[in-house]
Amino acid sequence: MCDFDRQYNQLMGLVNDYLYNLLVQMERYPVIIYDSIEYSLFAGGKRLRPIILLSTHSLLEGNIEESMPLAGGLEMIHTYSLIHDDLPAMDNDDYRRGIPTNHKKFGEGIAILAGDALLNLAYETMLENALLYQDRLVRHIGAINTIAQAAGIRGMIGGQVVDLENEGKRVTDVTLKYIHDHKTGSLFMASILAGISLEDPPEYISRALQEYGRSLGLAFQVVDDILDVTGNYKELGKITGRDRDKGKATYVDKYGLDGSRSIVKELYERAVDQLAIFGSRGKFLGELASFIINRHN
Amino acid sequence: MCDFDRQYNQLMGLVNDYLYNLLVQMERYPVIIYDSIEYSLFAGGKRLRPIILLSTHSLLEGNIEESMPLAGGLEMIHTYSLIHDDLPAMDNDDYRRGIPTNHKKFGEGIAILAGDALLNLAYETMLENALLYQDRLVRHIGAINTIAQAAGIRGMIGGQVVDLENEGKRVTDVTLKYIHDHKTGSLFMASILAGISLEDPPEYISRALQEYGRSLGLAFQVVDDILDVTGNYKELGKITGRDRDKGKATYVDKYGLDGSRSIVKELYERAVDQLAIFGSRGKFLGELASFIINRHN
Repeated sequence: MCDFDRQYNQLMGLVNDYLYNLLVQMERYPVIIYDSIEYSLFAGGKRLRPIILLSTHSLLEGNIEESMPLAGGLEMIHTYSLIHDDLPAMDNDDYRRGIPTNHKKFGEGIAILAGDALLNLAYETMLENALLYQDRLVRHIGAINTIAQAAGIRGMIGGQVVDLENEGKRVTDVTLKYIHDHKTGSLFMASILAGISLEDPPEYISRALQEYGRSLGLAFQVVDDILDVTGNYKELGKITGRDRDKGKATYVDKYGLDGSRSIVKELYERAVDQLAIFGSRGKFLGELASFIINRHN
Repeated sequence: MCDFDRQYNQLMGLVNDYLYNLLVQMERYPVIIYDSIEYSLFAGGKRLRPIILLSTHSLLEGNIEESMPLAGGLEMIHTYSLIHDDLPAMDNDDYRRGIPTNHKKFGEGIAILAGDALLNLAYETMLENALLYQDRLVRHIGAINTIAQAAGIRGMIGGQVVDLENEGKRVTDVTLKYIHDHKTGSLFMASILAGISLEDPPEYISRALQEYGRSLGLAFQVVDDILDVTGNYKELGKITGRDRDKGKATYVDKYGLDGSRSIVKELYERAVDQLAIFGSRGKFLGELASFIINRHN
């Protein structure tokens, strides 16, 4: 196993342990909502957003124990957005990560409430953690606020709305970019910005990390569009071609497969260029970018 | 117009102005989500939770300008819960406050996202306000955390889940009390607790206010159950008897109309008794309790 895999798996294990312990400590009543939350929260997610936050925070010499609840919060927000996105009134997907979607397993009512519960639990978790660092409270509230802005109407939810409104329509480049920047890009950026908020690095470092995050977030989404066409059910865990069937706006539609692959390459290079200032300490984030663009699911 | 009506209307006007100005300052893109949010947020709500918070905070000699964003946050959380509760997969209601429910007007997808957006916007709003009071940040985070706990799985959402799970079933007294305490009671309590968090009064004052909030929250819900049977569409703005038709657990079912009215009277008296320590300064909260139990919608 190479260094990157070992580091990635280690961070993923820490995130999984954190989320597991958080839920295990709760009262588990009513049982069904905990079952529903756990079903989606432990469905084999790659924990990309938490890992970006933790590794950014670590690069800035922060203590990842302090940022773990923010990383967990990001993953809860991401998971809630998937549960709601899969609902019949939204994307109407029956499978995700190779298993039935939350509403297929628990019914729509519980799936809606499980999403609501995860969004709210993210804030409960991040706020309680903030109260443990009273001498650094302003930084924590700044970090939580950054995540809140990214998750909301001016971020991820805005992207979901424009996506939903444009199903089956031919969209402009500007609209396509808006959807991708907001629906996926916002939380990626927040993973970086939250780490920055906690450690307040010099401006040139902050700028480089933000540009890394922006490029990476967009690359992630273009790869998603490519995989919807080239991937297969076994690797992806969901039925491919769904976006195309639903007339969703995608990069492949707009720029073709080759054009989209060129965009990914360009974005990857722009992301990695930003890491030069960190020397060998930036290695993990560079390999993370490579991992994200070369993934098969 | 009596003193109480004037004071109530003044506070309601301040809350409405605050929410209106908050939304007007935003970018309004994508338009439909703002339309959907405004539709439900300005559908004629009584603003009970914000008014309880503001008047508690004022009684504790706090400045209500400081607590207004928390009051607004409470109302956004309450409104999101109504939008999601009305969905076909939940209560499946077509009318609320005399107009079509959010999903009837905007479709289910937008209604789900409008609810998500309101919940998230509540946190954005409360966090940004907290950052304006850096010397009182611990108190603000305490107040926001109190609201977060009340809104979440251990509070309101827990109540919604148990309510959903028990539709059409005969429930025990314990379950009925759980649903009411959590589904409605939690946010009522949080309106009181948030004011307490901001001003940190002596223990005996805190205890009295909490007991007031607990009794009032439960009384509110029992009155709701009574109105579902005795109210009419014109006054209530929604079809009555819906809870009964859906086999929902209600106090009227369990204790009959007269029994439920006795419970309300008892709870009202317990609430008002707590206010004695405030003398004439507790007058508004006392009249608010009377307003809540004597309402017709």
